Amino acid sequence: MENCSMNQIDITGCRVSLYPMKDDFAANILRSIEETNTTAVWQQTDLFSTLYRGEAASVIDAAAALFINAYDPDTHMVGEFTFSKGCPGDLAGDAFLNGKNEQPNQLQISEKGTFIVHCKYSFYVFGRENYMEEIAHIVSLAEEIGLQPQSAHYVTLLTGTAAQLFAYFERALAYAHEKLPHYVLEGTVSVNSPSLKEDSFHG
Amino acid sequence: MENCSMNQIDITGCRVSLYPMKDDFAANILRSIEETNTTAVWQQTDLFSTLYRGEAASVIDAAAALFINAYDPDTHMVGEFTFSKGCPGDLAGDAFLNGKNEQPNQLQISEKGTFIVHCKYSFYVFGRENYMEEIAHIVSLAEEIGLQPQSAHYVTLLTGTAAQLFAYFERALAYAHEKLPHYVLEGTVSVNSPSLKEDSFHG
Repeated sequence: MENCSMNQIDITGCRVSLYPMKDDFAANILRSIEETNTTAVWQQTDLFSTLYRGEAASVIDAAAALFINAYDPDTHMVGEFTFSKGCPGDLAGDAFLNGKNEQPNQLQISEKGTFIVHCKYSFYVFGRENYMEEIAHIVSLAEEIGLQPQSAHYVTLLTGTAAQLFAYFERALAYAHEKLPHYVLEGTVSVNSPSLKEDSFHG
Repeated sequence: MENCSMNQIDITGCRVSLYPMKDDFAANILRSIEETNTTAVWQQTDLFSTLYRGEAASVIDAAAALFINAYDPDTHMVGEFTFSKGCPGDLAGDAFLNGKNEQPNQLQISEKGTFIVHCKYSFYVFGRENYMEEIAHIVSLAEEIGLQPQSAHYVTLLTGTAAQLFAYFERALAYAHEKLPHYVLEGTVSVNSPSLKEDSFHG
């Protein structure tokens, strides 16, 4: 009945929710699911999200491709990403932990992921006294990769290309995977927001 | 440069993002902002969210009203809520900590909040060894209030009316406010999802 169990295993997961703000949002999401190569991950779609589980590099590859394939230059869209490790629930997806770290969508991501994204994210560490230091390190990696991190209430803000952002997530999760028993990275990625022009409402 | 500071204060905050999946999403959000009484909270709108800060009861009152006022029976909409305490960033909103716990939207919430919502949420506790026990307690409160909590990967699922869900968030945060130095509750609230009929995609 709780949102994760006491057992810790090495499988990484990501819940991805796509919110294209237009009447035919459903077709947009379905097209993206079809165009995303998910041979390297376990997957499941529920009412809220599509869930990928497997090796960190492969999970990010699938999550990035799902967002980038859904991109439409005329549509305001937001993607919500919850990356986690150390909170299994169950073992579904273990078969994908084969040490290969396959990333079948990398060409698509680098070719299509050239558009600008805005991101807010928070990195959460559990069961560690020095959790604030770990957060600071994760944010410093964003600075190194050129995403211009800015502090705001409850989140850090990033700006860059889609490909650059997901490359950062991969680097952050590689660090977390090695060093931390249980973490969550919650990221919100926004494209084509009318607020960029009008600054009068969010979306 | 990190997503919260070492100082802990008693102010509660909530980031609310609304995602109405339709062409005129902006008008929908603006209408809701206008109809929500925010006299009891500090507020700010940025590219991603509207942020309310103040006393926990007042923050939930404003966040619930913003979602409920945006509800349209013909629109699939998702709201993302990040409630937090113990992570100030700065002190903006301190003037609203007056001990009154005002809830100027309660009548609206109970009258309009009769529609069914589906929710996924995670409760995060920081700097505590026994964080899993605290999560289990927060989930047990959802059971008591009749929201039928179900476990899923990385989240707990709830079903009930909108008014019932936000009443639960108020109860959970009252407990957390009293017992925990630093927590985050991340909730996703979905209405009118076509997945309820088709089960073929998320949104």
